[in-house]
Order: sequence, then C-alpha cells, then structure tokens
Amino acid sequence: MDRLCVKPIEHRMIMPTTSTGLSRPRTRGIVLDLIRSARRISRVELVTASGLTGGTISNVVRELIEDGLVIEAGRTESTGGKPRTLLELNASARYTVGVQLDRGSAVIVVVDLAGHLIARTSMGGSGTRSPHDTLVMVADHIESLLMTTGIDRADVLGVGFVTHGPQDSERGTLLIGQPTEQWQNYPIVEDLETLVELPVMLDNDATAAALGEFWIGGVHPSSTYAAIYMASGIGGGVVVQGEPYRGSSGNGVEIGHISLDVDGPPCSCGNRGCLENFAGPTAVIARARMQPTLADRLGLTNGPTETVVNFARIARAASRGDSDARDIIDASARYIGKAAVSLANLFDLELIVLAGPSFTSAGANYLARVQDELDRSVFVRHVHPTRVVLSASGADAAAVGGAVRVLQSELTPLDLRKSDGRALTYTYQ
Amino acid sequence: MDRLCVKPIEHRMIMPTTSTGLSRPRTRGIVLDLIRSARRISRVELVTASGLTGGTISNVVRELIEDGLVIEAGRTESTGGKPRTLLELNASARYTVGVQLDRGSAVIVVVDLAGHLIARTSMGGSGTRSPHDTLVMVADHIESLLMTTGIDRADVLGVGFVTHGPQDSERGTLLIGQPTEQWQNYPIVEDLETLVELPVMLDNDATAAALGEFWIGGVHPSSTYAAIYMASGIGGGVVVQGEPYRGSSGNGVEIGHISLDVDGPPCSCGNRGCLENFAGPTAVIARARMQPTLADRLGLTNGPTETVVNFARIARAASRGDSDARDIIDASARYIGKAAVSLANLFDLELIVLAGPSFTSAGANYLARVQDELDRSVFVRHVHPTRVVLSASGADAAAVGGAVRVLQSELTPLDLRKSDGRALTYTYQ
Repeated sequence: MDRLCVKPIEHRMIMPTTSTGLSRPRTRGIVLDLIRSARRISRVELVTASGLTGGTISNVVRELIEDGLVIEAGRTESTGGKPRTLLELNASARYTVGVQLDRGSAVIVVVDLAGHLIARTSMGGSGTRSPHDTLVMVADHIESLLMTTGIDRADVLGVGFVTHGPQDSERGTLLIGQPTEQWQNYPIVEDLETLVELPVMLDNDATAAALGEFWIGGVHPSSTYAAIYMASGIGGGVVVQGEPYRGSSGNGVEIGHISLDVDGPPCSCGNRGCLENFAGPTAVIARARMQPTLADRLGLTNGPTETVVNFARIARAASRGDSDARDIIDASARYIGKAAVSLANLFDLELIVLAGPSFTSAGANYLARVQDELDRSVFVRHVHPTRVVLSASGADAAAVGGAVRVLQSELTPLDLRKSDGRALTYTYQ
Repeated sequence: MDRLCVKPIEHRMIMPTTSTGLSRPRTRGIVLDLIRSARRISRVELVTASGLTGGTISNVVRELIEDGLVIEAGRTESTGGKPRTLLELNASARYTVGVQLDRGSAVIVVVDLAGHLIARTSMGGSGTRSPHDTLVMVADHIESLLMTTGIDRADVLGVGFVTHGPQDSERGTLLIGQPTEQWQNYPIVEDLETLVELPVMLDNDATAAALGEFWIGGVHPSSTYAAIYMASGIGGGVVVQGEPYRGSSGNGVEIGHISLDVDGPPCSCGNRGCLENFAGPTAVIARARMQPTLADRLGLTNGPTETVVNFARIARAASRGDSDARDIIDASARYIGKAAVSLANLFDLELIVLAGPSFTSAGANYLARVQDELDRSVFVRHVHPTRVVLSASGADAAAVGGAVRVLQSELTPLDLRKSDGRALTYTYQ
C-alpha cells in the first residue's frame, strides 16, 4: 500500500471555457482535433478548416511536432502546384484512461491520442464497499491494465472517472450518498490521484457516454445528439458539434427526473411522476416482482447491486416472447419514448443514442417503440427527423467518453503550463 | 411602392459556428464584445480576458479603430507603470433593427452597437393579413423609426425579424402556416430584404427574448439561463454564456410542447398533454369562457388576435382578487412551474426569465408559484438554486434580442467580406 504515501498530485490545469476559449491552448486543442478527425491533412487545409491564419497554424503545428504529438506523413500528389506535406496524429504518443463506475459494475479502458480503444477490462462495481476500498480496487485494475499493455506511465495524460450525478466536478466529489451514504462529498478525485499518481477528472457517466459515442460510434461531427444512458438509473447527455452540453454546473440532462405525469407518484428527488420511476430498471424489476410466478420463472435475485442483471433477465425473457415480461418492458419503452420526445423538443436533436449496460441487454426491445414516439410526436419532425440508434460501443461508451474527456482537456493546457506557470486548478467547463 | 422594385440584397454573410468559431472575424467579434461588456478596457486587459496574444489584440484593435467601431478614451491612472490607453465602443457607429411579430402585436426597436435601446415603436400584429401586406406594414414602420431617429441607413447593419417556430432560418421561412396558411414557406427574409433594402435574418422569438434579456436585463455573462416566453403560445430559449443554444436547426427549447401528462389530451403538434394546452393563454381563456358569468364580468372578447388582450384581462382580475380568475391563473402557473423544473433539470439552469407580452401582464401571478416548484423539485437544487425573475425588458425583450442577433452576427463577418470576397451566404447553423 505504499502507493498511499505519495504526495498529492500538484499539476492541475486550467481548462478554457468553450465560449471564450480563444487562448492559444484552445487553438492547439482545435488543431489537434482537426488533424485527428481528418486523419491526414495539410497545413493549408488546416488554415481553411480552422479559420486561423497561416502563421498561427505554422506555429501550432511546429510545437505539436516538437512535442511528438503530430508527425509528417508524406505529401499530396502534385496537381500542378507545389505538393503539400501531410500531417497526422502520432496516436501512440499519449494515452488516457477512462473509468466508468456503477454500483453493479465498472469498466476501465485505455485510449490513445486518436481516441482508439487500446485496452479494456471490467470488474465488479462499488456495491457496499467504502469509497476508498473501491478506489483502491480501481487503481489496481488501472495499474494492471497499463502493465499488460506495456504503456509507459509518463505517456498517460490522466484518468477520466465517470459515474452518476449530481457532482461537484471542481471539488471532485459526488453530491448525494449513492450507492452508500459514504460517497457523499467523498474526495474521489483527490484519493484516486494519490492512488494512481495521475491527474484525475470526474464527470457524469451519461455525458461521457454521449461523448464516447461521438468518438467511437461514427456520429457526424456537426451533429446535435443525445445519449439516454440506462444502467440501474436513467441519465442523459447532449453533445453539440463534439462538445458536451455542460449547463451551469455540469449536472444537466437529468432525463430520469423529468415529470411525465405531474400528478404521478412522488420521487425521492422531490419531483413527481419522474421517468425513472415509470421506466427505469428498478421500476421494471419491481413490477416483475409483483407477479411472483414471473419472478420465479426468470430467477430474479435479491440485492441492490443486481439491478442491471435482473433487468437483463426480464429483457431477455421479453425478447424470447414471454408475454408478461414483454408487457413490462413495452410499458417502460413507451415512457422512454415519451421522454425522448421532450428531449428532442427541447434540444432540437437529430439523433438519440441508447447507451449504457441496461440498453446493451435490452436495447432492441426499445428501439422501435422509441422511434415510433419520435416519428409521431416530435415538434420539428417536419423540419428534420430524430433518429434513435443503439450505442455502437455497448457498455463501454461511458468509460471511453471519460478517457476522451481527459484527452480533450489535457492536450490543451500543456501549453498554458509552459507559457506562464501560474497556479493551475481544474475548472472543467 | 417603388421600394418593391429594387433588386434583392446580395451581400449575405457567413456566420461562424460557435464550437469551431476561431476564424479572425470571430476573434474580432469577441474583442468587440469584451470592449462592450467592460465599457472601458486597455489592450493589456483584453489580452488577459480573451486569451489572445498581444500581437493579435493589437491588430484587431487597430482595425476596429480604423473602421470607426472603437475609440480611444483616455488613459488609466498611473500606478507606477506606464499609463494604458483605454478603449471603448463607439456606440453610435452602427445600429441594428429588431422586429418581433405576433398575430396580435408587433414591436420594432433600434439598438446601437453597445446594445442600448435607441428607439421603439409598436403596431398591430399580422392578424389575418397576407404575409406581404404585413411585411409592407413592418417596412413602413422601420422606415419611419429610422427617419424619426435621424439614423443614416448606411450605418444600419440589418434587421433581426423574430417570430414563432418552427423555422427554416437558412431559407428565411416559417415551416407551419400560422397565423394563416399563407405564412407557411413564405419567403419572409427575401421579401423584407427587398422592402427595407437591408439584410434581414429570421430567428425564433423566444430565443431572441432570452438573448435580449442578456443584453438589457443584467444577466451575469457566465450564466446558463432560459427564458420562458409567453405571447399567445409558450416558447423557450436558452442562453449559455451569452450564446443562444441553437440545436440542430435553431428550433429547440419548444417548452410549450413537452408533455406533462403522457395520457393527457392530444395536441395539434402530435404529442399529448403538452404544457401549452394546460397553461397557455388560449387554454386559460377557454377555461374562463366555460364560466359565462366570469367571461361577462371580465368583458372577454372574441377573435383569435385578441388572445393576449383577453389573457391580460383574466390575469388582472386574478391580481385584483377575483377568486374564479385566480383559480384559473394558479392552475396555469402550477403547470408552468412543473415545466420549468423539467427545463432546469435538462439544461442545468441558474436562472429562468419569464418574458413576453403575456408575462408582462401576468408575471407577478406566476413568479412565486414557479419559484416554489423550482425550490421543491429541481434535481440539482442542493448544488445551486434556480431563480425565476420577470423579464427586465417587458414586452420588448424579443425585439431587442432580434436586433442583438444581427449585431452579434454582423459585426463579425464584415472582416470576412473584406478579406477574401468569396460568395457569402447566411448559415445560422
């Protein structure tokens, strides 16, 4: 346990805000992202695509090459003019780690600078373990994964740790005591940074899943789309042209807690008729338990950590044609569809991705019903359709998104650290 | 009517998108906005506030001074170092016009480069007039307003025309036939550009109201907030750090059409249990008409253009203590509060502004009830409060927002037009 004795990580970073993010570090991040998305691109094309001046592109590219993040990779065919040198990412120059933690399970991934999935592992979730014991387990798995893949720790930019909200991402804490009271205000970021000796950032799992889908799911770069993320609860994330929608505190898109019946049953959140209480895995399991023969037939088990597993049993039975199970899943799907309509009407969405472990097991049961609600009821359906798809990345989207968040935020500030050396603190958003 | 004979305006402009808006024109727009919001600021402070290099600030400021948009205005007090020249906007160098059109009324404003309201007028709405006749009327009023204020047309950057959605902002058309069928796909932008001989942009009235509040209502620049806009219908707009949330087609935040009861009455939009049918002025008036003595007592009139007026009569009666009227308004306020909770849960809002003509007459009846719902039910209320306020700009917020949209988009592209002369088209995302 000597890992516990190292001093806390001190190199924190300023993350420029999106709307005024015009500092050189942001410029650097944008140029890197253009090179990543184009795969191979010339300096002249970078000028056109970024709107930056030739001189700025020249300087930024020179720095990126010096830092080993970008390499020159051949030249364009001559079409009469001077052939142009092509640039591409040196994808294996840096890596980031993503961790998605839920009560029932956890996924850990490593991605390279291009956002490619390099390695993945999964483990049991937090269950009723203490936060510290859980994080020790997470740190051990990160350690093993890096060892197995032979990645030099010096090339790892940091860890994106994603889980449920609400969160205080600046302090790196959760604001409610779930799955146990101990998690409320526990210094997750501080503890995990000490354990893994790497910078850690905390984010919402549903937001991360939406972002992960952008990188590994082939979402069009200019899309405005959402992920509805279902594990044991239901969350959401919206991505606008590659940037997650953050709201005022990074706690937006709580689609599980919008009311679909203002006179409906009270929810622990303070609202009434929340989506989660009609359609979430806990509600689905409770409804199945009300039919003892169904619960027996499906072998539903007890225990709060088994929500995702029990939900998957009901979903599989529905797929097999069990009519009792199908009625329960259909009712859930109808509510998800209604909530998807509100989400589309408010965020003007082209696409909704069903992501997270519970949609991995049950997504096919939901797809047609949600699409049907969208086709019939979205306010702007005559302007453009809102399509619904299953996540391309299965249960890994949130963990990949966590890794990508670090990629997006960490590449940028290196420059800042170099240039002015001022005291640096995380301010994600 | 010789105004009808001029050839269509050809100088259209590229509007950079928010997330990749790093072109020099965007830089210019941001510097201008920093000077505007600071009132007086030095070049050194601009470097700090923008994150741009000293060289870039120097060049941009020189251009802005050459174009007459910025002036040097004194120096800082010497505090040992060299005193710094202060810059301020030359507010009267340019103007924009904002038009908010509804079935029942229209407001036209002129704002200067600093976003100050210079002049305003109002007129009857479109009613059952043809689109062209309505636009001729609008053009006449714009003409008179410019004449009265003595503003040189050459200094007017353009007209922001705001009305209900859904819209095709690129083609400058409305996508539904409201208030009459003729408005569907009518070339509003093209026709009004011909009539006023100025560039025109079309936007959503609720989005514009949210933006207008930012400029004239003293909203904090870093806020994430929404406007709920109530005229004869209910719309919404969200602003994130001074930038309107646009979604994929500029048709987002349709809060009037989120379902508050998924088994509720069908709405003409295709959805069920929509907010507008529970809480909007038309629903409120219909409920009042169901009590003939109340309808008589309040002097409710007939006619679709009188929605806002009739609604105001009911709201005033509720304020005076008429218990029948109060019950109806209270029911409406409760639903608005419930919808506000969904809006806050999805967009993670610090602030909700009640704007538009119907809240101008009835806002005080709504304020406490909506705040109460937010305080009790918003998911992140333990992270930060969501406050609700009445619009500071009364019925003018949308028109001012329309004018500001032009300001924001027009200042930027002048530079683009100068620098490369390529064919320019509107692309408001």
